[in-house]
Amino acid sequence: MMGSSFKERASKNLLSCDNTGGDAHFRRTENDFSNMYARDLLPAKNGEEPTMQFLLEVVEILTTYVRKTFDRSTKVLDFHHPHQLLEGMEGFNLELSDQPESLEQILVDCRDTLKYGVRTGHPRFFNQLSTGLDIVGLAGEWLTSTANTNMFTYEIAPVFVLMEQLTLKKMREMVGWPNGEGDGIFSPGGAISNMYSVMIARYKYFPEVKTKGMSAAPRLVLFTSEHSHYSIKKACAALGFGTENLILLSTDKRGRVIPADLEAKVIEAKQKGYVPMFVNATAGTTVYGAFDPINEIADICEKYNMWLHVDGAWGGGLLMSRKHRHKLNGVERANSVTWNPHKMMGVPLQCSAVLVRERGLLQGCNSMCAGYLFQPDKQYDTSYDTGDKAIQCGRHVDIFKFWLMWKAKGTVGFEHHIDKCLDLSGYLYDKIKNREGYELVSEGEPQHTNVCFWYIPPGLRGLPDGQERQERLHKVAPKIKAMMMESGTTMVGYQPQGDKVNFFRMVISNHAATRSDIDFLIEEIERLGLDL
Amino acid sequence: MMGSSFKERASKNLLSCDNTGGDAHFRRTENDFSNMYARDLLPAKNGEEPTMQFLLEVVEILTTYVRKTFDRSTKVLDFHHPHQLLEGMEGFNLELSDQPESLEQILVDCRDTLKYGVRTGHPRFFNQLSTGLDIVGLAGEWLTSTANTNMFTYEIAPVFVLMEQLTLKKMREMVGWPNGEGDGIFSPGGAISNMYSVMIARYKYFPEVKTKGMSAAPRLVLFTSEHSHYSIKKACAALGFGTENLILLSTDKRGRVIPADLEAKVIEAKQKGYVPMFVNATAGTTVYGAFDPINEIADICEKYNMWLHVDGAWGGGLLMSRKHRHKLNGVERANSVTWNPHKMMGVPLQCSAVLVRERGLLQGCNSMCAGYLFQPDKQYDTSYDTGDKAIQCGRHVDIFKFWLMWKAKGTVGFEHHIDKCLDLSGYLYDKIKNREGYELVSEGEPQHTNVCFWYIPPGLRGLPDGQERQERLHKVAPKIKAMMMESGTTMVGYQPQGDKVNFFRMVISNHAATRSDIDFLIEEIERLGLDL
Repeated sequence: MMGSSFKERASKNLLSCDNTGGDAHFRRTENDFSNMYARDLLPAKNGEEPTMQFLLEVVEILTTYVRKTFDRSTKVLDFHHPHQLLEGMEGFNLELSDQPESLEQILVDCRDTLKYGVRTGHPRFFNQLSTGLDIVGLAGEWLTSTANTNMFTYEIAPVFVLMEQLTLKKMREMVGWPNGEGDGIFSPGGAISNMYSVMIARYKYFPEVKTKGMSAAPRLVLFTSEHSHYSIKKACAALGFGTENLILLSTDKRGRVIPADLEAKVIEAKQKGYVPMFVNATAGTTVYGAFDPINEIADICEKYNMWLHVDGAWGGGLLMSRKHRHKLNGVERANSVTWNPHKMMGVPLQCSAVLVRERGLLQGCNSMCAGYLFQPDKQYDTSYDTGDKAIQCGRHVDIFKFWLMWKAKGTVGFEHHIDKCLDLSGYLYDKIKNREGYELVSEGEPQHTNVCFWYIPPGLRGLPDGQERQERLHKVAPKIKAMMMESGTTMVGYQPQGDKVNFFRMVISNHAATRSDIDFLIEEIERLGLDL
Repeated sequence: MMGSSFKERASKNLLSCDNTGGDAHFRRTENDFSNMYARDLLPAKNGEEPTMQFLLEVVEILTTYVRKTFDRSTKVLDFHHPHQLLEGMEGFNLELSDQPESLEQILVDCRDTLKYGVRTGHPRFFNQLSTGLDIVGLAGEWLTSTANTNMFTYEIAPVFVLMEQLTLKKMREMVGWPNGEGDGIFSPGGAISNMYSVMIARYKYFPEVKTKGMSAAPRLVLFTSEHSHYSIKKACAALGFGTENLILLSTDKRGRVIPADLEAKVIEAKQKGYVPMFVNATAGTTVYGAFDPINEIADICEKYNMWLHVDGAWGGGLLMSRKHRHKLNGVERANSVTWNPHKMMGVPLQCSAVLVRERGLLQGCNSMCAGYLFQPDKQYDTSYDTGDKAIQCGRHVDIFKFWLMWKAKGTVGFEHHIDKCLDLSGYLYDKIKNREGYELVSEGEPQHTNVCFWYIPPGLRGLPDGQERQERLHKVAPKIKAMMMESGTTMVGYQPQGDKVNFFRMVISNHAATRSDIDFLIEEIERLGLDL
């Protein structure tokens, strides 16, 4: 049974027939999609049968992909350059045309799209903060697409709107706000969630900016770690603050903001006549996985009356772990928090929440009272209509997969997942900290699942520290990464940071990864890097 | 066969067994999910079999829902008030808990989520601009969820990134820009696409705002129709312009901007020392479906050196129709265009594009050059990495379903869909224009599929025009709508506009709708409104 197809299983379990031997030929003749077109599907007359057959075939393709995703004998990717894919691989042509293609071609296109893509759920895919393929989450997304509705009103998304409300409350409880009070919204990613936090802070201190623009406020300055995510800077550009008014804070050797540096820079800004308004503390930086000291930053925010935002896009998940949540101590003092379940908690993309301690700000900041959507004279309690809190109008249903996973795993299931991933990063750290050919970028045990390191090929090990070594070392990670992608065996990220040349950033959020996959990654780096 | 289940079909077609009679009992014993949990699914050891069984069961639920969606004998919704759903319907409890639930409960939750939701694909759902359930689009979304990747780099979304590029080019060709040159990006909805247009315009004229903030620019003013979508106003609030600096333009009786009013207001703003920067022309307003006269507006934009944005979120789809595309004449003179395939073209939510005529502005406006994502030393042509053009970091894959639908229908298929929907709105218009008890809100043939009308119940028909009649008429649409939702038979929107009391706004984008469904809507309004 292990290698049999989804459709075989479907039939075996339904009918208990064993007649699966010759079905390949049978299937081809029974489901002839070469003369079928989209116009033959529902709502076409007699469209039900072709619709079910077509969807069945698609599901067969998808479940085959799911099975292979978890199979370590398959590649993570089958790399092709843009020009290769654009020129067209055999039978796979990306160009769009005026006339319809047959459903047979559509099914081929589905297979090829997956074939030439990247298996982000593969146990050896470590390339991003979002990895893994959660089966219940996947089912949740399939249902969400089928329901195909919009979060802006209770009217057309009653169940999803309530799920969002309950889940946000639960998240606020984990943040530590009394009774989970407060507000929040799911947004299309952490960058937008962070943008919300800056907007709301501005509305809290200078509500007249909404109507009069930035000229109604004094010169406002914002603070964030030099290691924080670039979305804070994007928000400053977009919202009209200007990136120069975002002041970068120095960090210690482990990448954490130095609170004294924050206070010094606040005082300096005030002396210049600027108004310090907003501080972002990161819980889990993108590269190092560092946790800024929230309590000490909160003290300074209180002293100088500044908004405290905690960007826990990556590290927020640790709130689910009794063992690791202390890394976010003080988060309950934040005015707003970004938390992306689609990262550390393995929820399918996209799923990001911004949580706000004070009720009413989101609504006040964003409401425009569009009459065609938010009629006050509806028959239900219209406080459940969420659309006017958002900077969006239509809003994708991102809640269901997360709610369903939470139901299916329980809080303890997320805790187990997080503890396991952090345990794996500890394993990697222990493995390489004294291993020949490795240098760690940041000192001490990993704070999150990030482990940053240089691999020093044998040919570089004898070189004295200096410009030549640095220049050659800078090229090692990109070369190994390129070879990894060509061979398709595994994927891990790299980047330079400040004056540090290119290094690998290992992150683990994939629930399929095991110690053997960590071992494999190290072997692969050494195999590919041997002759560099 | 018509009533048989997905799983029966699967087996019938695979195995040609007819042994489906007693499968209900068989299924229950074979797939006992009551002792199975999420932890038993992949990547668990021996998790493949439970995973396939679980997904099969989910697909059974979804395909049953799809079939019912197109069945006019099913309700559009089964309405419940928030407190009813929150208190818990039999077996459906929205609360999250610490411990996991069995997969049996998860499957029940999936069924109940759909049961208490709204069938937005039902032929009689007319409530929003986005309606319908396209089967190929649905398959595309299922695949997208399964691939679970992110648009920011070619590295992890090679195929999707190229599909986006080719599709945007095709859309720009339809706009009429030479060789489809220009730029663009898919964003999480029309509101964000419109926000992009304002950001890019500001960057074009005052690039220093990116670094220095709004204080680096003079007082900027923007112009849009009094009937335009509220997202333009939201963008002005968010981006630091201030809503007072958005000047609303008067419209003619059919809801179209009066170009002379624009010019007068531009001159007035200049006389006050303000700088007119941006004009939004709407192609298909939300309520009336009006098309602003783009060419005349473009003349004024050229004369006064202002950015011309066309918000074609709703009306952009008409570019696919040789019969109706003239309504957007002049769109090729726009600097940017919003176009939501998830509205008029029936693509599943979310799918919205902003198109920009000048290359480089999106990148210039938003780039922050994050080293950990956009390494310049990758082995492929990194101009394909799209992330630094976006205000987002991670970005959901919204392109695949659209690309797949385009392949499956061809341009001609979209054209047919659009022509058919506009034909239906003409049918509705003809039906009610002289019918007793109806008054049209706006004069003349519908410009788009919007038909706005009052239904006057018999008891109000004798009343003289005056305050009492207006007050009573204002309550008619909400009452009928509430009864519609309680009976679950159909859904249509209503709203007041300016000094006009509540009226129905009928819109048609659902490919399942037919003339009989229009007839049904009218009958239902009359049935429910008879005694008001």
